[in-house]
Amino acid sequence: MLRQFEVELRELKNRILAMGGLVEEAIEKSTLLLGSRDQSGFTQLKSIERKINEENMMIDSICLEVLARLSPVAADLRLILAIIKINTDLERMGDQAMNIGYNVDHYIEDGGVDLKLNLPHMAGLVKKMVRDSLDAFMKDDIALAEKVLQSDDEVDQFKNSVFEKMVTFMRTSPDQIGPALDMILVARNLERMADHATNIAEDVIFACTGEDVRHGTGKAKK
Amino acid sequence: MLRQFEVELRELKNRILAMGGLVEEAIEKSTLLLGSRDQSGFTQLKSIERKINEENMMIDSICLEVLARLSPVAADLRLILAIIKINTDLERMGDQAMNIGYNVDHYIEDGGVDLKLNLPHMAGLVKKMVRDSLDAFMKDDIALAEKVLQSDDEVDQFKNSVFEKMVTFMRTSPDQIGPALDMILVARNLERMADHATNIAEDVIFACTGEDVRHGTGKAKK
Repeated sequence: MLRQFEVELRELKNRILAMGGLVEEAIEKSTLLLGSRDQSGFTQLKSIERKINEENMMIDSICLEVLARLSPVAADLRLILAIIKINTDLERMGDQAMNIGYNVDHYIEDGGVDLKLNLPHMAGLVKKMVRDSLDAFMKDDIALAEKVLQSDDEVDQFKNSVFEKMVTFMRTSPDQIGPALDMILVARNLERMADHATNIAEDVIFACTGEDVRHGTGKAKK
Repeated sequence: MLRQFEVELRELKNRILAMGGLVEEAIEKSTLLLGSRDQSGFTQLKSIERKINEENMMIDSICLEVLARLSPVAADLRLILAIIKINTDLERMGDQAMNIGYNVDHYIEDGGVDLKLNLPHMAGLVKKMVRDSLDAFMKDDIALAEKVLQSDDEVDQFKNSVFEKMVTFMRTSPDQIGPALDMILVARNLERMADHATNIAEDVIFACTGEDVRHGTGKAKK
């Protein structure tokens, strides 16, 4: 028979996975808006973000209750703390997706000229980081979590290239400064989402090994 | 005699307060760089951020240990969870201060022309939000935490006004697009710091009352 903690943990993990699915949907929806003048996409995005927020509060409340009732220690405790942190990162990704929604809304209002940046490709990279970080979480897969940490560079480079292209473009097309700025901000929001996926990967490594790999130090000093 | 938990809690609260002091210092240092060509300020900022990161890992490690050893429940447990979250928000503020450092470094390289935006005033507003949110935390002052939530609007408005001024300026001065973009990014980083201070205020309210005031719903539904 499963321990009570394992039953609760399974529910929490499934909730985190479902929340990650909503975040992936939000990323996709927000960047799909780039090619669309259909306002209903933005309405759908808002509704996904609301669900993410509800799930965020629910998961926190379950974690609090599990900690109080079962007082887990060692690896079990680390797992619950990792879930609390992953939950926060997923919720913030929902906020970033909403920011992208607003940037794109503004961009469409400004004419929505195609600036050939292939941001949906960047969104695809970020979605993959989210999925991989949560797969790593579900399967205690440290190697996959480490792969997520490495993917962050590619997203950073993409963001930098968008930035440089748009600065050059703005210099020659001052009448397109608005849309170009919107694209810079979309790329920055995507890059921040990738940072959150990186945080999740670090939490997975911590939950699995007890090793704090943040800040490149390998371990917390005491 | 104080309960063991209260002794540990006092140490954790003092550490959070000291970390908040480092964050305030980082905010001040990062925006002071705006008026300076002295690279030593940036070096100092990097050293403050390193300390914030070390403290971040230390506080997490103490919280884990306290949870495992003392298994707090109810208000005590909420407090430790609030500390874990506040700790994360403070660390992210350190990251934002570093982002500002890089933006300003780029801006100075680009000539550092004064764009009359009074960003140090905006930085002052954000620093006050950080200080007030942590004062609220130290004193269990819900009214002060609520005041922090309201201050966020002023910072948002300041950021929007910087954005609008810089877009107008870029249209007429395409040769100054680089520095103007840097100022937009500094204002956005400051605004994100204000968001983190808001998160802290929400955590304080949760720790004091058990009420989850995030996402404007007043309470988590189950």
